[in-house]
Amino acid sequence: MTGFPTAPDKRALEEGEALTPRFDAAGLVAAVATDADTGEVLMLAWMNAEALQKTIDTGEAHYWSRSRQELWHKGATSGQVQQVVELRVDCDQDAVWLKVRPQGDGGACHTGRKSCFYRAVEGGRLVARP
Amino acid sequence: MTGFPTAPDKRALEEGEALTPRFDAAGLVAAVATDADTGEVLMLAWMNAEALQKTIDTGEAHYWSRSRQELWHKGATSGQVQQVVELRVDCDQDAVWLKVRPQGDGGACHTGRKSCFYRAVEGGRLVARP
Repeated sequence: MTGFPTAPDKRALEEGEALTPRFDAAGLVAAVATDADTGEVLMLAWMNAEALQKTIDTGEAHYWSRSRQELWHKGATSGQVQQVVELRVDCDQDAVWLKVRPQGDGGACHTGRKSCFYRAVEGGRLVARP
Repeated sequence: MTGFPTAPDKRALEEGEALTPRFDAAGLVAAVATDADTGEVLMLAWMNAEALQKTIDTGEAHYWSRSRQELWHKGATSGQVQQVVELRVDCDQDAVWLKVRPQGDGGACHTGRKSCFYRAVEGGRLVARP
């Protein structure tokens, strides 16, 4: 079952106790994953209703792969399963924040780095950052 | 000038020094802002090319308001200007991470909280979290 209710009004959306995610036209919410221990931002991805429900049900991060157009159990092939320590929603419930513990080699990025955000903008160029 | 180049190939996109953001069909990239000092995730918003360029040029976070469909200089009316300490891009350059110092009352959320992510999902319900 992946049907989430809709908030009846703005107050319920922002102050209520019901999880009423606002998926966009493509059926997605943005999801940011941080390392539960260090706070580092690991990745930014997307969830549809099924991915969000499976994340809640299993305690492991599931996303929607926009490139492959399929449900994506993070780590199913790479071993980089993300155990969800806490799942939060933002004020208007169109974004979620996952605090996770990365399993396997501890990474999150397909390039082999721990975080996908390994470059900073400096003077108009990208510079590698630990 | 808000024209960003396009990466010629995947290697340039992921390992190159050129900022070549991949805006989606709506012309946007996702932007997550964290508190530069505490690491707390403050908000998740959107940037078009103009917002990204203005953020880089001014050192203050600019977003694209999807609800108002207009450029949004965060804090211009609320005083919650976000001074950008570092701006990062992710591996495939379709998301940015801003480490910011919130000015004014130190908040980021229109509800008055510091962070927009003030509720966690627990047992299928939303619970307030500091």
